[in-house]
Amino acid sequence: VPDFTHDAARRSWLDAANRPTDFPLQNLPFGVFRVRDDEIARVGIAIGDAILDLGRAHEAGLFAGDALAAADACVGHSLNPLLALARPARQALRHRVSRLLGPEATGVEREAVAALLVPRADVRMELPVAIGDYTDFYASIHHATNVGRMLRPEHPLLPNYKWVPIGYHGRASSVVVSGTEIARPRGQRLLPGAEAPTFGPSGRLDYELEIGAYVSGGNSLGHPIPIDRAREHLFGLCLVNDWSARDLQAWEYQPLGPFLSKSFATTVSPWVVTADALEPYRVAMPPRPAGDPPPLPYLDSAQEREAGAYDIALEVWLRTAAMRAQGLPPVRVSLSHARDLYWSFPQLITHHTSNGCNLRPGDLLASGTVSGSAPEARASLLELTWQGAHPLPLPTGEQRRFLEDGDEVVFRGRVPATGGATMGFGECRGLVRAPAS
Amino acid sequence: VPDFTHDAARRSWLDAANRPTDFPLQNLPFGVFRVRDDEIARVGIAIGDAILDLGRAHEAGLFAGDALAAADACVGHSLNPLLALARPARQALRHRVSRLLGPEATGVEREAVAALLVPRADVRMELPVAIGDYTDFYASIHHATNVGRMLRPEHPLLPNYKWVPIGYHGRASSVVVSGTEIARPRGQRLLPGAEAPTFGPSGRLDYELEIGAYVSGGNSLGHPIPIDRAREHLFGLCLVNDWSARDLQAWEYQPLGPFLSKSFATTVSPWVVTADALEPYRVAMPPRPAGDPPPLPYLDSAQEREAGAYDIALEVWLRTAAMRAQGLPPVRVSLSHARDLYWSFPQLITHHTSNGCNLRPGDLLASGTVSGSAPEARASLLELTWQGAHPLPLPTGEQRRFLEDGDEVVFRGRVPATGGATMGFGECRGLVRAPAS
Repeated sequence: VPDFTHDAARRSWLDAANRPTDFPLQNLPFGVFRVRDDEIARVGIAIGDAILDLGRAHEAGLFAGDALAAADACVGHSLNPLLALARPARQALRHRVSRLLGPEATGVEREAVAALLVPRADVRMELPVAIGDYTDFYASIHHATNVGRMLRPEHPLLPNYKWVPIGYHGRASSVVVSGTEIARPRGQRLLPGAEAPTFGPSGRLDYELEIGAYVSGGNSLGHPIPIDRAREHLFGLCLVNDWSARDLQAWEYQPLGPFLSKSFATTVSPWVVTADALEPYRVAMPPRPAGDPPPLPYLDSAQEREAGAYDIALEVWLRTAAMRAQGLPPVRVSLSHARDLYWSFPQLITHHTSNGCNLRPGDLLASGTVSGSAPEARASLLELTWQGAHPLPLPTGEQRRFLEDGDEVVFRGRVPATGGATMGFGECRGLVRAPAS
Repeated sequence: VPDFTHDAARRSWLDAANRPTDFPLQNLPFGVFRVRDDEIARVGIAIGDAILDLGRAHEAGLFAGDALAAADACVGHSLNPLLALARPARQALRHRVSRLLGPEATGVEREAVAALLVPRADVRMELPVAIGDYTDFYASIHHATNVGRMLRPEHPLLPNYKWVPIGYHGRASSVVVSGTEIARPRGQRLLPGAEAPTFGPSGRLDYELEIGAYVSGGNSLGHPIPIDRAREHLFGLCLVNDWSARDLQAWEYQPLGPFLSKSFATTVSPWVVTADALEPYRVAMPPRPAGDPPPLPYLDSAQEREAGAYDIALEVWLRTAAMRAQGLPPVRVSLSHARDLYWSFPQLITHHTSNGCNLRPGDLLASGTVSGSAPEARASLLELTWQGAHPLPLPTGEQRRFLEDGDEVVFRGRVPATGGATMGFGECRGLVRAPAS
């Protein structure tokens, strides 16, 4: 049954939603915003250059039935209660909001809704979800191969890579929302030629372009989620910058994996684009190269093979302090694609719970660096500059091996234009500053 | 200034607190309990074979001043609000409870308190803290050396071990309280002689005996906790069983560390023994062997060298289904000691925040397997049986390489007896069952 909210021909009565924007009527992403610093945070849906305040819309009596149950879950200051609901209630809310902002809205409804719209320019966005556990995967075989080539040129991929969706537990407390400044971390690193480590600011700070997925529903301990039920637990996606201190990482990561090289900060984009909105942009997973094993049965599903990947183009933009001072715009340094991941998010969910581990509503799963096979699709400076061997030239005459203080990194993501409508994720932005003294 | 609560000569008017018990008047550990399954969980302090219900004691008007502020934080169903308070309020509460249960209590107070005591035999204990992030360290050099010898006999310790307090992010959602049954995890493992992995129940399920520390206070992102302030953020300790599936671990852990081999369950003991109660049991850290580097300056402190370790003896007891059926008691399989750790908890706290990572009240830090140098001090079956090469004989004639379904594992911890009083942690218990089908 086609879902009317996906109809690319539908236009909003709100003009700004019909101009080029990441947030047309077909998107309706969820976020948490604050109009003034002293006001409590509120749940909203982005539309064009505005936000529909869901708590106030609920107070105004705009919802009924299943949509009302979902709107009830949106009166707080995080998306967690909404993520705890079953999908039908969330879909009912989406349908109702689409009608309220779409051509079906009556004059009375338009007037009521218009009074509840907040200009996006007037708000500060907050972390949308109180994240219980954050897990970071390693689902791009191109990224794993690139990193492996630097460490082990003859056997870049470890023997487990094509079998196990490799992942590790990340740090939930230091996940921050787009726009938060990133203090360069200090830590232990072995400087070139040194025999002993020293403690000081990281000299190899990097970004990693990733896609994040928020879990809805979840499972109880000891009860894995089978692959054909995993997609129900995918609430929506965001952009993630898994900031990484490569020098700290190289020294600390054996034998238990990355720790302080990652836990100083992880940035997420503020708007969560729902799995419902992305439904038309599901595409076949890339065929596995000849000789690669098929996924083990617990991870294998025709549904995933045929429509497990997402058609999302991903970009990294960089602007240095000197570029800002000279009035130069950011430059795009990576152009990658979510389609190229070796594992789908439902496969990651099923693997994660296959040992009985429980996922909770609001858990964040990230893909790992989404690199592609093309040189420009390398989605970290580590890969782009090949550990600094090939510095990145910039319009100012500067070059970058790794990030310097004052550098600003912005991620964007967009699905293909359909019938003139674009749809995207907004920004995931972070400016690097010197550590506090 | 000596703290009267540490006086080993003080006796409670409650007889059971003066008989051999882990919970004499000198201990006063915090926990969360539930009298009936349908009743809301409540915060309490263990004394002898009873629990003082702090919420009801608060209602009864037994607290004033700073102690009242701390008691206010104990009316909910977790210790998190208490952990968010500064230490003086928590100490005031401890002092007041010690007087209420001690020889100073008036007749009226004794009568009031007696009415608020709940027999421990009548309650079900709950997870005491809503854990934000769980971090597991690797702070026993004996454990790291044993594991290293199995993998790399010639160079057991990696070059970073003596410099970096190695740790990794653990899974918070699957931390369970003592008594919760542990379903054997399924997962990918490479069976002996196999060329490809298969998915099935772990055949190498193990325990790991650890000490856990709950964080109080905490720090904001970007603001490390210096070593001489770190002890303030240590609320108290518990016992931790970091259940591990060795076959899953061996196959999955490269390059990002343990993941599903650990995240199926982690058991904690229900009673949190406060840092205040343990103050008399701080001892010098073991001197570093000749040739070992001193800690880097950010981790070094005279206070830690002189009194950074804890004098806690740790035990592992095992009872199989056949032993239960034959009426045989559990056997002690490991006898280890917290004093032997290479890093102190304040050093772990300082290292954890040295990159700017924020700790929050209620975060759990675990030590890693607390093995010692003696053969009986190997605190996992992996070490005790040397990967199964030397099975553990049991009184039934059975033997164990790894855990089998029906095996029950119990951890205990005790400080040395002082003036006749013992003091301990209670139990950390888990029974292994077959996975749900």
